Amino acid sequence: MALRDATRQVMVGDVPVGGGAPVAVQSMLNAPAKDVEANLAQIEALAQAGCEIVRMAIPQRSCLDAFQEVCAASPLPVVADVHFDAQIAIEAARRGAAKLRVNPGNIGGWGPTDAVIDAAREAGIPIRVGVNAGSLDDALAARVDLSLPQKLALSACQYVEHFHQRGFYDIVVSAKAHDVPVTIETYRLLAQQLPEVPLHIGVTEAGTAFQGIIKSAAGLGVLLEEGIGDTMRISLTDDPVKEVRACWTLLSALDLRRRFPELISCPTCGRCQVNLIDIAQQVEQRLGEVDRPLKVAVMGCVVNGPGEAADADIGVACGAGSGAVFASGKIVRKVSEENIVDALFEEMGRL
Amino acid sequence: MALRDATRQVMVGDVPVGGGAPVAVQSMLNAPAKDVEANLAQIEALAQAGCEIVRMAIPQRSCLDAFQEVCAASPLPVVADVHFDAQIAIEAARRGAAKLRVNPGNIGGWGPTDAVIDAAREAGIPIRVGVNAGSLDDALAARVDLSLPQKLALSACQYVEHFHQRGFYDIVVSAKAHDVPVTIETYRLLAQQLPEVPLHIGVTEAGTAFQGIIKSAAGLGVLLEEGIGDTMRISLTDDPVKEVRACWTLLSALDLRRRFPELISCPTCGRCQVNLIDIAQQVEQRLGEVDRPLKVAVMGCVVNGPGEAADADIGVACGAGSGAVFASGKIVRKVSEENIVDALFEEMGRL
Repeated sequence: MALRDATRQVMVGDVPVGGGAPVAVQSMLNAPAKDVEANLAQIEALAQAGCEIVRMAIPQRSCLDAFQEVCAASPLPVVADVHFDAQIAIEAARRGAAKLRVNPGNIGGWGPTDAVIDAAREAGIPIRVGVNAGSLDDALAARVDLSLPQKLALSACQYVEHFHQRGFYDIVVSAKAHDVPVTIETYRLLAQQLPEVPLHIGVTEAGTAFQGIIKSAAGLGVLLEEGIGDTMRISLTDDPVKEVRACWTLLSALDLRRRFPELISCPTCGRCQVNLIDIAQQVEQRLGEVDRPLKVAVMGCVVNGPGEAADADIGVACGAGSGAVFASGKIVRKVSEENIVDALFEEMGRL
Repeated sequence: MALRDATRQVMVGDVPVGGGAPVAVQSMLNAPAKDVEANLAQIEALAQAGCEIVRMAIPQRSCLDAFQEVCAASPLPVVADVHFDAQIAIEAARRGAAKLRVNPGNIGGWGPTDAVIDAAREAGIPIRVGVNAGSLDDALAARVDLSLPQKLALSACQYVEHFHQRGFYDIVVSAKAHDVPVTIETYRLLAQQLPEVPLHIGVTEAGTAFQGIIKSAAGLGVLLEEGIGDTMRISLTDDPVKEVRACWTLLSALDLRRRFPELISCPTCGRCQVNLIDIAQQVEQRLGEVDRPLKVAVMGCVVNGPGEAADADIGVACGAGSGAVFASGKIVRKVSEENIVDALFEEMGRL
């Protein structure tokens, strides 16, 4: 089984993917393809949220000028997402793409695929070979002797073999489905069958934020915990900034990468004698501006409160209308309910 | 390794837990402990959302009358959550609790613990033995030869041994931490060391909705996918109804239990020529009233759209300002953008 450390590293702009590099966080632009300003504004917001690689669809050749402008001005490496028309991918490679994302199954056959490979080689950029359950090759989709994960993995392996035969090794592979068990099984197969290839993991078409985050955290959580996945995207039918925040929260939860604060807060119960949900939400909002991986605990009662507050960098254990503020394991202040949030952030500033 | 099917089944009211029963969905009331009406209203909302077992804190003896009234009127089995005072647990068993949740480490020693065991036996109800990282026994917490998961598992095992020695076997065990890798490792140890005991799984103090859902879906997702966990709670610093919705979404994502619709919707990109986020959110909202496990696909373009829409029970693959509506794999209508949502629900009604 080929895990994160064992894959061959490729560079997407200045971001390493695979070969033991930290799991890279990706998202995708959803502004209109010709609107340069809107796409650059979205990249700015994504970068601010911690996005490291950004993907942009190029649906028609007439969008290539805008793509080129975006690449030239973008602080993040931009991946060109191309379907159906190999010529667009070839042009994108020449105009500043940091990576190409193609599905050889819909790009027009092996001839056009080879032309795309050659363009990437010339530009010195990698290619993501992306297979999706929703656009699997008809002949393969019809086979009754294989499960869907086996079909997806086989499709990806066949493409990789072709790329390797053409002497092109700077590849990342994805094989996405909207079904979580299918996604998990497919990537387990890929990790076994393509031990040297970095994997881009994701649950595709995962839905709107609530459901999409749950499906992605479960599916990618299982994979990341097993050491599978070199770069990730959480696909949501929502603002892509939420995708990036969700990626970081998941990486931090699994202790793989920490960059932003973590809030430990209890679910409240009949024992709680402050408005803890309100306090926790205020703290969460103000933590949005903090760019350090601090642990902050907001706890409602004496059952687990003092233990958790003392274990965090900063914490509060509440009682009746008041709270004991902890810093680095010790009580530093007792304050009334309305002063808890300010006191926490004052003490945080002193750390 | 003892998985879900191999545990000894206990009954919480009429809800089976363990022994191959479906993973039972739990939540906890957070209305003031003496407010009978507020607690019953919350139980009603939780039951509506699919909650199967509900827990209620009894912080003081003076709350026992309210607890008794809630138990008598509740459509769901009510678990008494008791800390520090064994007498409250004993009284709760006599007044209608369907299960007791105690931490023998804070209930006053073995004498009071035994009195609680005897009260549960007399009432014919099970006990959840709940250990938390934030309230671990001091002597155990201080041991440097054990990891935190080992400490939590050992603590739970010692309690279980005591319960077994007293001839009491109707137990469920939990050992929660706010840290996801610690939670995963602890429950893996418990599944090995207590193969016959049903496990209540959860990440505790997981935070407000966004982070709490990600931590819980990742941690519980890993465990459930391995066959660990007989009943679950997702703890959020938010409305408990969200906890229940998150549980069902996770169980459905892992294909363990399906009860509500699943929405497959793409994240949109520069190719999309309808306002798909808006359409998907409208569909999501109207699906909130549908109580069948249908698959509904809302897709933005031709790349994966027709494939996913055809694969779902009901779906739409959008083009420029319009959509092709699919039912059971076939296109049944083409409609303009503003009629997509209504058309989907009309076709759904015909299924």
